[in-house]
Amino acid sequence: MTARVKLRELGEFGLIARIERMARRVHGAGVALGIGDDAALLRARSGEPLALTTDAFVEGVHFRFGDEPALRIGRRALVANLSDLAAMGARPLAFTLALAAPPSLEARVALALVRGALREGAAHGCPLVGGNVTRARETSLTIAAVGSMGRGRALLRSAARPGDRLLVTGSLGGAALDRLRAERGRSRLRHRPEARIAAGLALARLPGAGACIDVSDGLLADLRHLLEASRVGAELDVARLPRPRGFATASRALRLDPDRLALAGGEDYELLFTVRPGAPGAPALARRLRIPVTEIGRITARRGGLRLRGARPGMLQSPGGWRHFGPR
Amino acid sequence: MTARVKLRELGEFGLIARIERMARRVHGAGVALGIGDDAALLRARSGEPLALTTDAFVEGVHFRFGDEPALRIGRRALVANLSDLAAMGARPLAFTLALAAPPSLEARVALALVRGALREGAAHGCPLVGGNVTRARETSLTIAAVGSMGRGRALLRSAARPGDRLLVTGSLGGAALDRLRAERGRSRLRHRPEARIAAGLALARLPGAGACIDVSDGLLADLRHLLEASRVGAELDVARLPRPRGFATASRALRLDPDRLALAGGEDYELLFTVRPGAPGAPALARRLRIPVTEIGRITARRGGLRLRGARPGMLQSPGGWRHFGPR
Repeated sequence: MTARVKLRELGEFGLIARIERMARRVHGAGVALGIGDDAALLRARSGEPLALTTDAFVEGVHFRFGDEPALRIGRRALVANLSDLAAMGARPLAFTLALAAPPSLEARVALALVRGALREGAAHGCPLVGGNVTRARETSLTIAAVGSMGRGRALLRSAARPGDRLLVTGSLGGAALDRLRAERGRSRLRHRPEARIAAGLALARLPGAGACIDVSDGLLADLRHLLEASRVGAELDVARLPRPRGFATASRALRLDPDRLALAGGEDYELLFTVRPGAPGAPALARRLRIPVTEIGRITARRGGLRLRGARPGMLQSPGGWRHFGPR
Repeated sequence: MTARVKLRELGEFGLIARIERMARRVHGAGVALGIGDDAALLRARSGEPLALTTDAFVEGVHFRFGDEPALRIGRRALVANLSDLAAMGARPLAFTLALAAPPSLEARVALALVRGALREGAAHGCPLVGGNVTRARETSLTIAAVGSMGRGRALLRSAARPGDRLLVTGSLGGAALDRLRAERGRSRLRHRPEARIAAGLALARLPGAGACIDVSDGLLADLRHLLEASRVGAELDVARLPRPRGFATASRALRLDPDRLALAGGEDYELLFTVRPGAPGAPALARRLRIPVTEIGRITARRGGLRLRGARPGMLQSPGGWRHFGPR
């Protein structure tokens, strides 16, 4: 690499790709699945595999103290990790939390961050088992979460095949709309994201389940990850994307394109997954997963790339997902 | 808590104590040992327990780019985590790395940080299996590491008993001296800390092994953690603390007190442990652990507190270890 390339030029995914290449050269006897999926799978000499994932929440990037209570920030930070476990079909076991904060932060705010994560963990039988606190210029929470795979099959990003149907749980775009409303001073954040743990476990036991990823960066961005990992293409039907009640009206009130919000908005934490052609239809899957499930497209051969039906020209080229090191 | 207490008033250990109290209220079926030791122990429904730990390295707190190569910073960040696994008697399986950095950071520096951790991991068969990259105002690495417990017993901080002999591997104070030399512009950092993985594994299989902790915050600070967890006291013989060759001369050249450096200097990553009265002596332990081992005191009843033999008055009250939120 040229000596002076900055991270803003290399970009988040350029950096990740380079790290992945370096990391793949190191092997470990206890690793069943390494870098590149929603979580890694570890296997000790005996027993079931464990899923391991990590995610960071940084002040000014993932949250601002003025926009939402500290309790909610802590809760969201754990949801992001639990959602990765859900997308593997894992049951949460425990998490660690590394808290960095300036000495001037109010102690009650720091404790509320932790309490938010603890409460979310408690709802899933997932306790805090260790951590770290350090001084820093800005506040951040970095969580690592471990889950057990039980009797289910791991839900890999790489398991989609041409002919699979493409489905998503719940609804899309609500978190992004909520955030944009808050940024424009219309309201504090209200959307309550949930990690789809039970749905992931049910999917991991479903005969005919294919690939799975959680929608954290935005549907388009995460679908692209799934397609790349599986080396396939897809047709996505934009009109069928499930949206929250009143979404179109609320979007237009902010002069936002609802299609684009549903496609590119992040932090939905829904599961985007594929099933083989013979698997049950969306209504039966919804009963099995106990949450709404919508069929939104199908997997095609790789050469077809990603095609959007019902999209306006240019939508596919629009920035999908958050870019960490580049301009917004 | 009074509403406006800042972290600098509560302090690192005050914050940790409050987090521990909150965390203990949440239980998890898969947790064999929760918050409070060098690592947590997780147990899936089948198989051996796994150890889980996390540690963060923050620019300006744990490292400065001018003081040492980025490769070394990344290496140290993993050593800190592997050392926690060593202090449990665990064998490293895999780690995750969350990298936060400003967009202006040179990509080659970011990659060197990661490469340093990867190389250290490769030396222990411990690959990078996942991670996260995010924008932030300052650079930081937060690592979570998982180890397997194999057939050894877990080495707990809480297992010391009155009558135990107190021992330490390697030598103390070298890392602190090196850092102070670098801060005064005398040299770049040269001390090469190692996680005592093999020694921890050997100790975990030793009949008569007691408690164990790694010396990361400084001998006095970490000894206090061990004594509190075990509810015991100790007598420590300051004259017997093992120091690197030429340590006294080098310390005095910087007008530093070598005793104080050996007692309070951090990042030694040696193992501080106890053995029952009938266990082998230090020379036999050194052969078994394949590194130097020095007996430096003994465990007493709790009411005796911590007594230093051969210490000047006031040394016990001197600040032991790094304080994250207070003044240095």
